[in-house]
Amino acid sequence: MTATEQNLQVRLAKRTVGLPEDDTWRIAENPIPTPGPGEMLVANRYLSIDPAMRGWINEGRSYVEPVAIDAVMRAGAVGEVIASNNDHFPIGTHVSGLFGVQQFALSDGKGVVPVDPNLAPLPYYLATLGMPGMTAYFGLLDVGEAKAGETVVVSAAAGAVGQVVGQVAKIQGCRVVGIAGGPEKCGWVRDELGFDACIDYRNEDVRAGLKEHCPDGIHVYFDNVGGDILDLALSKLALRARVVLCGAISQYNNMQAMRGPANYMSLLVNRARMEGFVVFDYAKRYGEAAREMGEWMAQGKLQTRIDEQQGVASFPETFRKLFRGENFGKLVIRV
Amino acid sequence: MTATEQNLQVRLAKRTVGLPEDDTWRIAENPIPTPGPGEMLVANRYLSIDPAMRGWINEGRSYVEPVAIDAVMRAGAVGEVIASNNDHFPIGTHVSGLFGVQQFALSDGKGVVPVDPNLAPLPYYLATLGMPGMTAYFGLLDVGEAKAGETVVVSAAAGAVGQVVGQVAKIQGCRVVGIAGGPEKCGWVRDELGFDACIDYRNEDVRAGLKEHCPDGIHVYFDNVGGDILDLALSKLALRARVVLCGAISQYNNMQAMRGPANYMSLLVNRARMEGFVVFDYAKRYGEAAREMGEWMAQGKLQTRIDEQQGVASFPETFRKLFRGENFGKLVIRV
Repeated sequence: MTATEQNLQVRLAKRTVGLPEDDTWRIAENPIPTPGPGEMLVANRYLSIDPAMRGWINEGRSYVEPVAIDAVMRAGAVGEVIASNNDHFPIGTHVSGLFGVQQFALSDGKGVVPVDPNLAPLPYYLATLGMPGMTAYFGLLDVGEAKAGETVVVSAAAGAVGQVVGQVAKIQGCRVVGIAGGPEKCGWVRDELGFDACIDYRNEDVRAGLKEHCPDGIHVYFDNVGGDILDLALSKLALRARVVLCGAISQYNNMQAMRGPANYMSLLVNRARMEGFVVFDYAKRYGEAAREMGEWMAQGKLQTRIDEQQGVASFPETFRKLFRGENFGKLVIRV
Repeated sequence: MTATEQNLQVRLAKRTVGLPEDDTWRIAENPIPTPGPGEMLVANRYLSIDPAMRGWINEGRSYVEPVAIDAVMRAGAVGEVIASNNDHFPIGTHVSGLFGVQQFALSDGKGVVPVDPNLAPLPYYLATLGMPGMTAYFGLLDVGEAKAGETVVVSAAAGAVGQVVGQVAKIQGCRVVGIAGGPEKCGWVRDELGFDACIDYRNEDVRAGLKEHCPDGIHVYFDNVGGDILDLALSKLALRARVVLCGAISQYNNMQAMRGPANYMSLLVNRARMEGFVVFDYAKRYGEAAREMGEWMAQGKLQTRIDEQQGVASFPETFRKLFRGENFGKLVIRV
């Protein structure tokens, strides 16, 4: 860090409908800030690119405040403390937190957790050992109540959450069917991650695939996408099935009104439930999940695939890649 | 019963899309049958007219078999045993069962329960003390888990199920807001049944009404109607709300594809769930519910309103009344 170095940032220029174009954002360069009392300066190493971020730039009530116009875009990140007036986080500590789409972030330490780069590569703390992993773990086991012998279907199966859902479900003794876009992703979750089957929604008939691979119906459907695939899954539910609502990436950039699942009355016929959750509610149990998943990782039962893009300035295009389904694994930006 | 007396029946002539016109049905006269070994002959007194019957005449998998073409239309009924070779049901016994839309039914006693006309008027056994009452009781308390102090909203509030849902919720100490069509029904559930409020969906803005009457949001929404009203209720959910799917009368005669609830992602934001159930699954606990509701009736806390139409031949038009929302109370046909 020299006196002339600047802090490259991505700020929200305006709200938008549809897929955010370049003019949704403003690339800014500002002086690197100096930590005040109790504060620290974090040099971001990896930024997390997640579907939920689309909701954060909409106006209106949700589970978190919207990002304000002209504010630095909110993002999870891992980085290293390079200046500190905070005793809990001395210089050299690696940390994870909502540090935003920028090279350097000031933090007072609230919501920040230390991470150990010797235990796992840094981006893993944005993936299996971060929010996507926690989301998969609690969504599948707590909300979905997946049990051995049941059939679990997960959409966006090669994505950050989906890959963990499927592997944890296999560890629990479930039959696991993924849905993903393209033969490469499908091959990977089947051959590398051990899913029982994977349906390529870009090239195969999803209805026929569900029929073939879920002969006893679907006991847990973990939905990351919404839209047509949610409807098809609803039409194949087993008795007392659980539909876990994790996201609806197919709908986030919808120019029309949001589309609801036309087959929702399958919940009635099958005495099934559809339930949403927000992973932050499980914060007190993150440690428990991280310990268990860390063990599975050490035993080679739980793999993580990262899709790494380069540089803060790549954010606008990287963000669009996510909604076009072009990422293969957990999408991050290396700062 | 004389030798020349016939059995007037309504049989299913064809499957149909939309509101079933007269030609969906065939009015038939057949000889009154004679009970074989173990059988009895029931003279129907009251037929139950329920929204679920619309689903029974559709083809395809559901929670019960569809009514076959040319078969007597399935219906719940209460009647009196007038000839019997079944020791469990001697002549003079009053009984409830799926006796169909006809004057006389043969039965082997399976699924038949005796009822006591001295404890409650016969049609009550098709209402509060029958399937609608059981549906309300288990849907509200078991699926919806309504607790004192919570806000319960129920649609079709003056209908067979809705009226019981609201009254049982009041008994539990909930704040109860009904939704019904017209000032007469709304006035009744408010003034006679003690609901805290009722929104007249024909003449009022349901969104504004929910906002006014549910200042803390909706904790339990008991849905009998689907469509727009389900969507509006979803947009007002409280944290950890429960949406109980009981029916979707607004959609049963839909000529287009079924419409799903566009606001379903409110389940995610609010960590809420939407759950279906089928009352038959609670058969073993009917006695428990009937005892408790019988006590409430004896204490004057639980009223029943019956809408009585006349004669088996009125079935086609009476059935349409139900879907036009023209019934006021539990709809029955007096045979």
